[in-house]
Amino acid sequence: MRIVVLAGGIGGARFLRGLKSAAPDADITVIGNTGDDIHLFGLKVCPDLDTVMYTLGGGIHEEQGWGRTDESFAVKEELAAYGVGPDWFGLGDRDFATHIVRTQMMGAGYPLSAVTEALCARWQPGVRLLPMTDDRVETHVLIDDPEGDGRKAVHFQEYWVRLRASVPAHAVVPVGADQAKPAPGVLEAIAGADVVLFPPSNPVVSIGTILAVPGVREAIADAGIPVVGLSPIVGDAPVRGMADKVLAAVGVESTAAAVAQHYGSGLLDGWLVDTVDAGRVDAVEAAGIRCKAVPLMMTDTEATARMAAEALALAEEVRA
Amino acid sequence: MRIVVLAGGIGGARFLRGLKSAAPDADITVIGNTGDDIHLFGLKVCPDLDTVMYTLGGGIHEEQGWGRTDESFAVKEELAAYGVGPDWFGLGDRDFATHIVRTQMMGAGYPLSAVTEALCARWQPGVRLLPMTDDRVETHVLIDDPEGDGRKAVHFQEYWVRLRASVPAHAVVPVGADQAKPAPGVLEAIAGADVVLFPPSNPVVSIGTILAVPGVREAIADAGIPVVGLSPIVGDAPVRGMADKVLAAVGVESTAAAVAQHYGSGLLDGWLVDTVDAGRVDAVEAAGIRCKAVPLMMTDTEATARMAAEALALAEEVRA
Repeated sequence: MRIVVLAGGIGGARFLRGLKSAAPDADITVIGNTGDDIHLFGLKVCPDLDTVMYTLGGGIHEEQGWGRTDESFAVKEELAAYGVGPDWFGLGDRDFATHIVRTQMMGAGYPLSAVTEALCARWQPGVRLLPMTDDRVETHVLIDDPEGDGRKAVHFQEYWVRLRASVPAHAVVPVGADQAKPAPGVLEAIAGADVVLFPPSNPVVSIGTILAVPGVREAIADAGIPVVGLSPIVGDAPVRGMADKVLAAVGVESTAAAVAQHYGSGLLDGWLVDTVDAGRVDAVEAAGIRCKAVPLMMTDTEATARMAAEALALAEEVRA
Repeated sequence: MRIVVLAGGIGGARFLRGLKSAAPDADITVIGNTGDDIHLFGLKVCPDLDTVMYTLGGGIHEEQGWGRTDESFAVKEELAAYGVGPDWFGLGDRDFATHIVRTQMMGAGYPLSAVTEALCARWQPGVRLLPMTDDRVETHVLIDDPEGDGRKAVHFQEYWVRLRASVPAHAVVPVGADQAKPAPGVLEAIAGADVVLFPPSNPVVSIGTILAVPGVREAIADAGIPVVGLSPIVGDAPVRGMADKVLAAVGVESTAAAVAQHYGSGLLDGWLVDTVDAGRVDAVEAAGIRCKAVPLMMTDTEATARMAAEALALAEEVRA
């Protein structure tokens, strides 16, 4: 079975670990979000791609969900001693090496997709990890300008990490997405897939950004294969992270049903909500999307594997 | 008193610590060698400038003489895990931060002299540290090609660090030096100096490279001020390092007298040799260079301060 998964960071990575366990023989291609990529200290940092790579490759800081295990912070300390910022983005020494290799390869002319493949040659994530695009896309968030009457756009990471999503987001804009081309292999993977899965990743700044690359949404909708998602909202709140903040910015309620309706029946064939949201199943089905309520808490790999198996089972239901 | 010092790495840096102790009120400008600068992992590394900066700023690894104290090597380990080399150049995590800041500033368009000043704002070395040039100069060493009948040029660091100067050097070429311009402040510092000192640094690849920047040698020779050097050769062998290897490449014997004659009386007014080389004093004086034998082992800051005081005293003798 050939499975395509659209993935953001922590939620996507953990779901993928469960999926690999549930479908060990599947051929899995991950299309990773690069909208939250950022240049820090002259280095190209790809948080979502790295979280997937480290998680599936056994290098992730388990409790934290991002960054490396057994990490140290000598470089960061020194940068602070030089007075060079920003100081709000936590890059560890081991993580720095990844960004140094990536930046050096990109400086030598390799596209991000080739660099990602080279990095994965070490990590052996057991999936084919593709960036959504080799072009530069940066998710910006429009917030009130604290130093003026107007509004200003900040990089997603500044909104998410520095400001902890504590101020209202008026809009979320994947800058550059309209001019971006899908990375080599992305459209081919979708066209050749048996099923497309949306993990419980952020529907706006993770999966939404991937879908904003021209051609991706169309390829998925036109592939004629089951497209099944898992709700990142459980009991009207995000399972982790602050997805509600950016859902508000795009005018979507923080409910498991509203997220499914936001994707829409033109794209989504099946949707899993948590058992606590069983009351929302009818609303989703009324929108033309097959829906089922199952436990959706990724407490460990076994629980996550059961979620993935439910998603694959729902895909077979809608295919039939 | 305004003192200009031409400095390489370890020898120059340790001498400068003694000089600051011997002449605490002096206004010291250091013209640093950049011929052994190298790009590693996409980052600009300036070993000699950093050794001076770390040594005078209190951050040096004392026993080793280069690199940072309390250093760790997580980044290097990770780069090796990615299979990215070279692995023969020992960059520590704290040191990496310096190169990251430098590379980022240079990428933003700042010349090396401005970057060096910014880095020194943290380290407060107590001297004005100038690179010899803002232009790219790379010292290459011509060696026998192990994979052919001919010869090949390798970067100085490859010859020095990877090969440990274990193969014959047929020539030493400061590539780019002929097109280089002295960095801002270099010629002005020489013109305004009361004395110029050559520490016991490598006469070929450190001081020789600085003198190869068009205008520097002429400015020193024409300044009409005492120019005094200290022999890096004691008892016919380098005090540290492998200066004899590169002296052979330029056809100079490894003796305290031959190095003075190599600089020549047109440049050098005074020369200190070690007491074990007292027998060489006459030969140096016969070449028109005032010479004195004093202890030249930089065993600690006090001994080094006495050497610096002797050099300054010799400068006053030749001035009189």
